[in-house]
Amino acid sequence: MLLPLPFSFYYGDTDYYALIYSSLICFLLGGIGYYFLPKIKQDIRSKEGFAIVTFGWIIFALFGSFPFLFSGSCSTLTDAFFETMSGFTTTGATIFTDIEIIPHGILFWRSLTHWLGGMGIIVLSIAILPFLGVGGMQMFKAEVPGPVVDKLSPRITETAKILWGVYLLLTVAETTLLMLGGMDLFDSLCHSFGTMATGGFSTKNASVGAYNSVYIDYVIVFFMITAGMNFSLHFRMLKGSFKEIARSSEFLFYISIIAVITFLIGYEDFIYQFHNLGDSIRYALFQVVSIMTTTGFGTADYEKWSVSTNFLLFALMFIGGCAGSTGGGIKVIRIIILFKFIYNELIRLIHPQAVIIVKFGNIAVDRQVLINIAGFFMIYVFITAISTIVISFFNVDFITSLGAVAATINNIGPGFGLVGPTKNYSALPEAVKWILSFLMMLGRLEVYTVIILFSPAFWRK
Amino acid sequence: MLLPLPFSFYYGDTDYYALIYSSLICFLLGGIGYYFLPKIKQDIRSKEGFAIVTFGWIIFALFGSFPFLFSGSCSTLTDAFFETMSGFTTTGATIFTDIEIIPHGILFWRSLTHWLGGMGIIVLSIAILPFLGVGGMQMFKAEVPGPVVDKLSPRITETAKILWGVYLLLTVAETTLLMLGGMDLFDSLCHSFGTMATGGFSTKNASVGAYNSVYIDYVIVFFMITAGMNFSLHFRMLKGSFKEIARSSEFLFYISIIAVITFLIGYEDFIYQFHNLGDSIRYALFQVVSIMTTTGFGTADYEKWSVSTNFLLFALMFIGGCAGSTGGGIKVIRIIILFKFIYNELIRLIHPQAVIIVKFGNIAVDRQVLINIAGFFMIYVFITAISTIVISFFNVDFITSLGAVAATINNIGPGFGLVGPTKNYSALPEAVKWILSFLMMLGRLEVYTVIILFSPAFWRK
Repeated sequence: MLLPLPFSFYYGDTDYYALIYSSLICFLLGGIGYYFLPKIKQDIRSKEGFAIVTFGWIIFALFGSFPFLFSGSCSTLTDAFFETMSGFTTTGATIFTDIEIIPHGILFWRSLTHWLGGMGIIVLSIAILPFLGVGGMQMFKAEVPGPVVDKLSPRITETAKILWGVYLLLTVAETTLLMLGGMDLFDSLCHSFGTMATGGFSTKNASVGAYNSVYIDYVIVFFMITAGMNFSLHFRMLKGSFKEIARSSEFLFYISIIAVITFLIGYEDFIYQFHNLGDSIRYALFQVVSIMTTTGFGTADYEKWSVSTNFLLFALMFIGGCAGSTGGGIKVIRIIILFKFIYNELIRLIHPQAVIIVKFGNIAVDRQVLINIAGFFMIYVFITAISTIVISFFNVDFITSLGAVAATINNIGPGFGLVGPTKNYSALPEAVKWILSFLMMLGRLEVYTVIILFSPAFWRK
Repeated sequence: MLLPLPFSFYYGDTDYYALIYSSLICFLLGGIGYYFLPKIKQDIRSKEGFAIVTFGWIIFALFGSFPFLFSGSCSTLTDAFFETMSGFTTTGATIFTDIEIIPHGILFWRSLTHWLGGMGIIVLSIAILPFLGVGGMQMFKAEVPGPVVDKLSPRITETAKILWGVYLLLTVAETTLLMLGGMDLFDSLCHSFGTMATGGFSTKNASVGAYNSVYIDYVIVFFMITAGMNFSLHFRMLKGSFKEIARSSEFLFYISIIAVITFLIGYEDFIYQFHNLGDSIRYALFQVVSIMTTTGFGTADYEKWSVSTNFLLFALMFIGGCAGSTGGGIKVIRIIILFKFIYNELIRLIHPQAVIIVKFGNIAVDRQVLINIAGFFMIYVFITAISTIVISFFNVDFITSLGAVAATINNIGPGFGLVGPTKNYSALPEAVKWILSFLMMLGRLEVYTVIILFSPAFWRK
């Protein structure tokens, strides 16, 4: 919370009080906890792992909301919590109607929550969740053997350091490239945080569209695609083994989806909207990458595009990025495995006696992992359906309910209807904001990690 | 096709030509096929089973559309095929804007397609699909051991006779009760066909609402609930064993969902619409039962109700009736098993070493059946999503696309938007009508039966 201070002073804003007070409170409460709460002596079991991850995220969002509250940028705890949860979960859904009047220190803190959340997610998804066995996350470990160790041991620190190094390097690279495109340091940093975390908070009301620059659009597209890739791949590439990328079926599928949907949307735009080909591709590509990687930056109001375009974007929201990336959604690897799963069920109907193995690359997918992933998909669909119904009980219309649920559980940001790309979440009822905050966390922590805490069996000795 | 003739003559309509011509063509083509095509000598294998069921349904819909075409009631093959497929699949989606100007013979044929389709479905779902191993349909056989034999043998004829006896008996009972309520024989028969098949074709533009009778509403509600139950249960009851009903967890869950959702919708209606309590319950119950059993009769325009009500109805569309009923949708038994499946996955995360068995009643569900059902659910969701996107490419709006797909794949009839309860399917583009006809068949034949024909492995020797 002290990191934004230089910007606060440089721009002569008065929000430094809020940042200093907030960090003091955190320091005090943290100090009390550190000295007076009992120390954990024994090893952490997977059961505690779930609780630590979930409650950790809630506590971060709670403490992280202080600067918004103290600076007066948010008037209610609901709004401040929503904004912070949206930041740490790298969602990018905002309750601010006018972003450009918010003081610079607070804006920087807002983008920083993305960046810190993204850091947390990379380590969580590459090192911790596979170990906890959540939703078949162990699968991608088999595909891309990243710098991962098998036990939740002190060596996790090593893994984390390497991954964070890559993350930092990419952030610096993007910031530099954006500055070369004419963006100032403050905006470059904030947008790089938003990109690398696939978050989507911008410092402009019109998001990335405010710059109206082909160069900036393509720089951000490149880094969004990078951020939506498995970070183990980046690590491998830094070590010089480029083969891994060409061999990763998840990466190839991810790039293919982006290419195909960009073509479909760009083609329709080119034919019916009479743009020139370059612009059609540019806007289509930006939006497809922004939605699929679950970033949520915007350069165009996609709600003005055709219904079919909107459906395609809606479907992309659920696919999401690759496993081990900062992107949200169901994840590309799970979608691939589910398609193989269904195809195999068909084959089994034709040849009931055949022993069929779902393969991924050269590795046979364990039957239990398969069931795990199928369960993940079903629970995802059920939660989406039930949340949409519950939210509609607060007199929110059909498209807004569905759009808001899809945009939060998948950690996108902008949805459809009242929460569309040119609007924000401020007008929704208080209760709905809390439900959506919960959905952001649920999606971000791969669903299982959170709902397991609601099962009575979890709390039994 | 000759059965409607008495009504055609009685009402002095001129549609008897169309019916006679159509039956002559069917007789001729059928005769040619019977005498000149090679006879099947050996036993039918499951592979042929899939092809016979799917192509049989397509041929029925094609031949069944003749009366609509020859009478001039439908001007295109697309419309006639859509209407007939909607009939045989017991969907009840119509392309007729003014039903009441259609001659009586044709109307009777239209309702008769429902009734015949319903007959086909009962035998298909109780005796044939479990044998083919489609989407875990073998499960409910374990729960309610109906008059089912394990092999696709000559004894299937016996099973079919018993089930059809029950079906006929219930149809006669409903017709009698409707006539006691003041409906004439023609309308009573047509509405009984529509009810027992959970079809939904009415002879009135305002559907069942045209009678505005509390008595008729409740008679139809009772028989819709009956038609949405597993017909093996009816058979058991006729044999005097009522215990089966109380023991059937599928039936109990089915009735509970109806009760809970009726309460939710009725309560909201009572509070916000200022109806009296009796009317609120009556209209809510009718619509909930009509949608959940996938019948599609209407007594109220549910699109005028609240958004939350519409979401609840939308969710009910996908749940559908019980297995072994004439109802469509995913089926109650599958939903129950999926919930247990998800719950077990959670338990396994907490106790990774535990051996956990999904139980249904007292029977352990086979792991392979579980995977089968999970696959069924996923493919259902994927097909719904992809069809909605494809239909939106024909410039059909969001709500209509989604509503039409949900209303056809689940065999309901009325959907939302342009195909809502007071409207019909006539205005949709030709191509969309064919896609929806395909979806009706896909849903009706439990998905797997149809898509298996698209797999290259199916056609390999």
